[in-house]
Amino acid sequence: MIKVGIIGATGYTGEELIRLLVTRPDIELTTLTSRNEVGTKVQDYYPHFKGLIDQSFVAYDPNQIFDQVDVLFLCLPHGVSMEIAKAAQAHDVKVIDLGADFRLKDSQVYQEYYGIPQTEPDLLEQAVYGLPELYADDIHKADLIANPGCFVTCSLLGLLPVIDQEFIRTDSVIIDAKTGVSGAGRSAKVANLLTELGNNFYAYNPMAHRHIPEIEQTLNNVAKKQVTVQFTPHMLPIERGIHATFYLDLTADITEDQVRQIYQDYYQDKYFIHILGQDQLPQIKAVRASNFAHIQVKVDQRTNRLVIFAVIDNLVKGAAGQAIQNMNLMFGLDQTTGLTQVPIFP
Amino acid sequence: MIKVGIIGATGYTGEELIRLLVTRPDIELTTLTSRNEVGTKVQDYYPHFKGLIDQSFVAYDPNQIFDQVDVLFLCLPHGVSMEIAKAAQAHDVKVIDLGADFRLKDSQVYQEYYGIPQTEPDLLEQAVYGLPELYADDIHKADLIANPGCFVTCSLLGLLPVIDQEFIRTDSVIIDAKTGVSGAGRSAKVANLLTELGNNFYAYNPMAHRHIPEIEQTLNNVAKKQVTVQFTPHMLPIERGIHATFYLDLTADITEDQVRQIYQDYYQDKYFIHILGQDQLPQIKAVRASNFAHIQVKVDQRTNRLVIFAVIDNLVKGAAGQAIQNMNLMFGLDQTTGLTQVPIFP
Amino acid sequence: MIKVGIIGATGYTGEELIRLLVTRPDIELTTLTSRNEVGTKVQDYYPHFKGLIDQSFVAYDPNQIFDQVDVLFLCLPHGVSMEIAKAAQAHDVKVIDLGADFRLKDSQVYQEYYGIPQTEPDLLEQAVYGLPELYADDIHKADLIANPGCFVTCSLLGLLPVIDQEFIRTDSVIIDAKTGVSGAGRSAKVANLLTELGNNFYAYNPMAHRHIPEIEQTLNNVAKKQVTVQFTPHMLPIERGIHATFYLDLTADITEDQVRQIYQDYYQDKYFIHILGQDQLPQIKAVRASNFAHIQVKVDQRTNRLVIFAVIDNLVKGAAGQAIQNMNLMFGLDQTTGLTQVPIFP
Amino acid sequence: MIKVGIIGATGYTGEELIRLLVTRPDIELTTLTSRNEVGTKVQDYYPHFKGLIDQSFVAYDPNQIFDQVDVLFLCLPHGVSMEIAKAAQAHDVKVIDLGADFRLKDSQVYQEYYGIPQTEPDLLEQAVYGLPELYADDIHKADLIANPGCFVTCSLLGLLPVIDQEFIRTDSVIIDAKTGVSGAGRSAKVANLLTELGNNFYAYNPMAHRHIPEIEQTLNNVAKKQVTVQFTPHMLPIERGIHATFYLDLTADITEDQVRQIYQDYYQDKYFIHILGQDQLPQIKAVRASNFAHIQVKVDQRTNRLVIFAVIDNLVKGAAGQAIQNMNLMFGLDQTTGLTQVPIFP
Repeated sequence: MIKVGIIGATGYTGEELIRLLVTRPDIELTTLTSRNEVGTKVQDYYPHFKGLIDQSFVAYDPNQIFDQVDVLFLCLPHGVSMEIAKAAQAHDVKVIDLGADFRLKDSQVYQEYYGIPQTEPDLLEQAVYGLPELYADDIHKADLIANPGCFVTCSLLGLLPVIDQEFIRTDSVIIDAKTGVSGAGRSAKVANLLTELGNNFYAYNPMAHRHIPEIEQTLNNVAKKQVTVQFTPHMLPIERGIHATFYLDLTADITEDQVRQIYQDYYQDKYFIHILGQDQLPQIKAVRASNFAHIQVKVDQRTNRLVIFAVIDNLVKGAAGQAIQNMNLMFGLDQTTGLTQVPIFP
Repeated sequence: MIKVGIIGATGYTGEELIRLLVTRPDIELTTLTSRNEVGTKVQDYYPHFKGLIDQSFVAYDPNQIFDQVDVLFLCLPHGVSMEIAKAAQAHDVKVIDLGADFRLKDSQVYQEYYGIPQTEPDLLEQAVYGLPELYADDIHKADLIANPGCFVTCSLLGLLPVIDQEFIRTDSVIIDAKTGVSGAGRSAKVANLLTELGNNFYAYNPMAHRHIPEIEQTLNNVAKKQVTVQFTPHMLPIERGIHATFYLDLTADITEDQVRQIYQDYYQDKYFIHILGQDQLPQIKAVRASNFAHIQVKVDQRTNRLVIFAVIDNLVKGAAGQAIQNMNLMFGLDQTTGLTQVPIFP
Repeated sequence: MIKVGIIGATGYTGEELIRLLVTRPDIELTTLTSRNEVGTKVQDYYPHFKGLIDQSFVAYDPNQIFDQVDVLFLCLPHGVSMEIAKAAQAHDVKVIDLGADFRLKDSQVYQEYYGIPQTEPDLLEQAVYGLPELYADDIHKADLIANPGCFVTCSLLGLLPVIDQEFIRTDSVIIDAKTGVSGAGRSAKVANLLTELGNNFYAYNPMAHRHIPEIEQTLNNVAKKQVTVQFTPHMLPIERGIHATFYLDLTADITEDQVRQIYQDYYQDKYFIHILGQDQLPQIKAVRASNFAHIQVKVDQRTNRLVIFAVIDNLVKGAAGQAIQNMNLMFGLDQTTGLTQVPIFP
Repeated sequence: MIKVGIIGATGYTGEELIRLLVTRPDIELTTLTSRNEVGTKVQDYYPHFKGLIDQSFVAYDPNQIFDQVDVLFLCLPHGVSMEIAKAAQAHDVKVIDLGADFRLKDSQVYQEYYGIPQTEPDLLEQAVYGLPELYADDIHKADLIANPGCFVTCSLLGLLPVIDQEFIRTDSVIIDAKTGVSGAGRSAKVANLLTELGNNFYAYNPMAHRHIPEIEQTLNNVAKKQVTVQFTPHMLPIERGIHATFYLDLTADITEDQVRQIYQDYYQDKYFIHILGQDQLPQIKAVRASNFAHIQVKVDQRTNRLVIFAVIDNLVKGAAGQAIQNMNLMFGLDQTTGLTQVPIFP
């Protein structure tokens, strides 16, 4: 039995961790913390858990929590995870951080994009970037995981198979990304009201999104050269899901079938990643509430460009599902344990 | 040229007043007040007004405003309008209050439902209830209008033609009402996020909604006896619109055609009210963004019941449109001036 | 291993059966039939099944199918199931009919509401009405199940605990019901396009819905007297879910707590049915994609009425989930086997 | 009084023409044709027109129609307009074709993309491409207008101010476009049901959309060289609206302010086109149900790229509104006549 704590359990990421863990026979949810809802029953706060979980949210207590858990999921604003991760390490408790504090290996870039210093350089060095399709072995051995951002997960899954190929230009990658609004969290913002966002669509943070350095960091590592990404996030009037369309300039002749084969080979033993048949294009709803990703590639002979399409559920493969996939690896379980839910359609 | 001020212009009701008034050649929007957005350009706050209005929100200033306007629309929380209305009267400025302060003629009922006293009994007595289909003559002579609540408007329009008929029971009227979320205003509430409300539906305040005494007050007046209404509001995952289904027990034989004729006669010279043909049922989207109401009646022989269906747009006929209809009457204009917009579909 | 066939597997009910069965280790989906998609791979037709199911839709072949299956789920238009059920019985294959052919015990009522004769009176008599919360023992012994309609399931769950109580009137029950559009099936109708239904809401078939006699049939049996139901269905602009608000006249003094206790007692050992705490009202999204039902009761002293609220997912508890619950009972399994999915929120 | 006929008036484009014309005092809608709804009252077919239009749809009758109208709007599938336009010309009736038959000046390209021949070369030569912001003078003199496609309108408005500038590369223009589903018309397709499209998002026709040659044709004319466009349409789960994000490689130093000034200068006297302030990004809902376009430009120094954002309502500026703008010009009216509706928000 793995004893699990979730720090910051009232947000959508915490909710989704509970949803995916609460019925597992090998997991005990021992500690669910909240700042604002201490004492509230989880099933009163989230009525879809009615009858499924008895406990209440508790305050985070550093003097107790590390005796109650084998692993902590941190669902916190940036800047808050560092201290908790440090304390966890001192108590031999594994940590999966779903926030940003350990994602960027370059502390200066972290400071630049997040406006605060990364104060735990040793932990930062130990932290493993939790993209299981790329770093499964390291994750298996890790005690501290930096769970990737949702846009980043979708972007990397779409680009990894070709980013180190000779036939593409790495200095002109474009990612036109669209996300469902649950990516913005469970905070009361006028812009995210149904009145405002329903029937709406727009770009936001087009030049300055924090996911840009995170995307480039991993691509650089894989490509072994500097990759420059143009990343434009857009807001979709939907509950869940990310769709990204990638534009890559081709530098050599390559057929669509050849590229598709590269993707199929790359992901052939990756349970959650599907390359679609040539007549299909990924749709967000086909992966809803699941840990799957769907990818398609198209070569446009007319423009000499590779266009790639990828979808994930931002709360599952983009957050809680991937975090659990990492936990499974850390505890020597099959990656897919508890993550084989069929997508919900319609 | 009628000089218009809107107090509390940043909410959806204020926005809708601006939308319906900004292009009228006979209206000058002189003063748009806000507490939180003083100095913000209206078109920056509401980008759909881009290029259509140059001015900025200002603070409410009782020393200036009454020289700037002929009529004030008050879009304020309950309890705030009384003092402003009093000052307006002292300056011979007409007032249309879109809040609740002058709706309930019985101050005790007001106190019971709103938790604060009605402190202006003289004004309350002068205030005319602004349902033009019922009280056009009084509105024409009035200086202070209590604009009806959105649910109340839909409920009264659906019930007025039969509430004083012998063939219905008045002690068992049921109104099952559903509203779009703009009725909840432009305030940041978690429950109204697209994530929470999208694909959702639920009842709220089923026994205690503040619109119940307001509905009964006018029905009592028309029926000349006590009417008891069971009113259940529900939240729809849509932007605009109210739909109400009414259940009335029949006490005598009456055919559907006879009832429909009663409705057609009652509303025959009312431009905004349409009784649908016998094969059609009202749908919210058929009145979207317009001042129209659609009504249908059905007699169920099997259950001996009259079932009525009515729809309006909560922001137009349920608020801003009706307020302008009242303003038109107060200033001797045709009721429909500036209100003949065709509904938006799809 | 239970071998399962689904006749009419391309509709939403068939899809949902596949979703709920495809990952079960004790189930083999041997035969998925379709009229229009013979030879199409299931995962090409429904891309959310990508990687989860290899087989293709086949034509219904009465000469083969009964050797391939232990149980057939029939997802067919009314009138088509009778012949298949008869053939299945001859081959000792169990049948769960998700259509209407065996729901109404009175063949004349069937003919009146469906316009065709019920031609299998013997089968009709054997058929057990598949509401497990009411008829679990009979279902356990049955070979032919009439799976209840979606509206009917929600209505019965909301009314059963009190329909035989002295303190309610049974001749004036009102059910104001609202459904997500998946209840209309996967057929291309203009009215169900997102353009038409998005932001819309309306009543349909207000006097003549086919679920009325089905609701009354079971209520009559339980109440042991004639129950008359006013049933008004409305269309919600959402994907899944049914919400019903019930109005019952009280004939005696009873408190809300007493009524709630009656419901809690009635459903105390029913895993899928939850009576909410007194401050909560059921919301559709809290049971999405799950087999749960949430119910609340309110007593309105002012109107002397009991108001009940109930929600289910129309595709799960209202169709496929309940069918599987019946299958579980028929095969001696725990009712909840494979049906403990946590609702999806947001 | 201009007498107007609409051929194919039951689709969304026809509906929108009626909405925008029915209340104009200078317009008489004399003839509204339909193939499937002959004899149906317009207000029965489209209940939002209840009380606003008395007439019924009629069959297209070439022997009568040209005596009844001054101008015809053709809302027809490609291939059907050519013959009607020819007959109209013979009767000195002006034609505004909202279909594709006269958009592509190169008949071979038309044949390639639409699969049928363009059989009226003389008419094709006379036809004026109806983008008023570019060709107002020619439109004023024209008798036959090819009304631009919806995606094309948005794309051209976004690109025209810079496509002939030295500082951009014209061989690598990327348009990532997203449309509301009303662009697919009022036809019953499973993919466009609310069940399927709600909460969904996907690309379609990524390499082969018919709007590509239409976009390039006008850009070539303006840039006076070959422009190559990568155009990827995506489907949004919304009713109306198009959003496009454009990526252009910069070949010289230019600041964002300089580019924004170019746009402001280009559109300074164009009533319907707004360049947003530097802190705002276009959102679809800010132009809903209106003829406005909103545009923003961003220069990314890091990637040396110009990123442009543009929104329109596909049914108004992308179809019916622009067609009426063209009609106004053809009849010597102010372009904005009858087109100054304020966008609907929320």
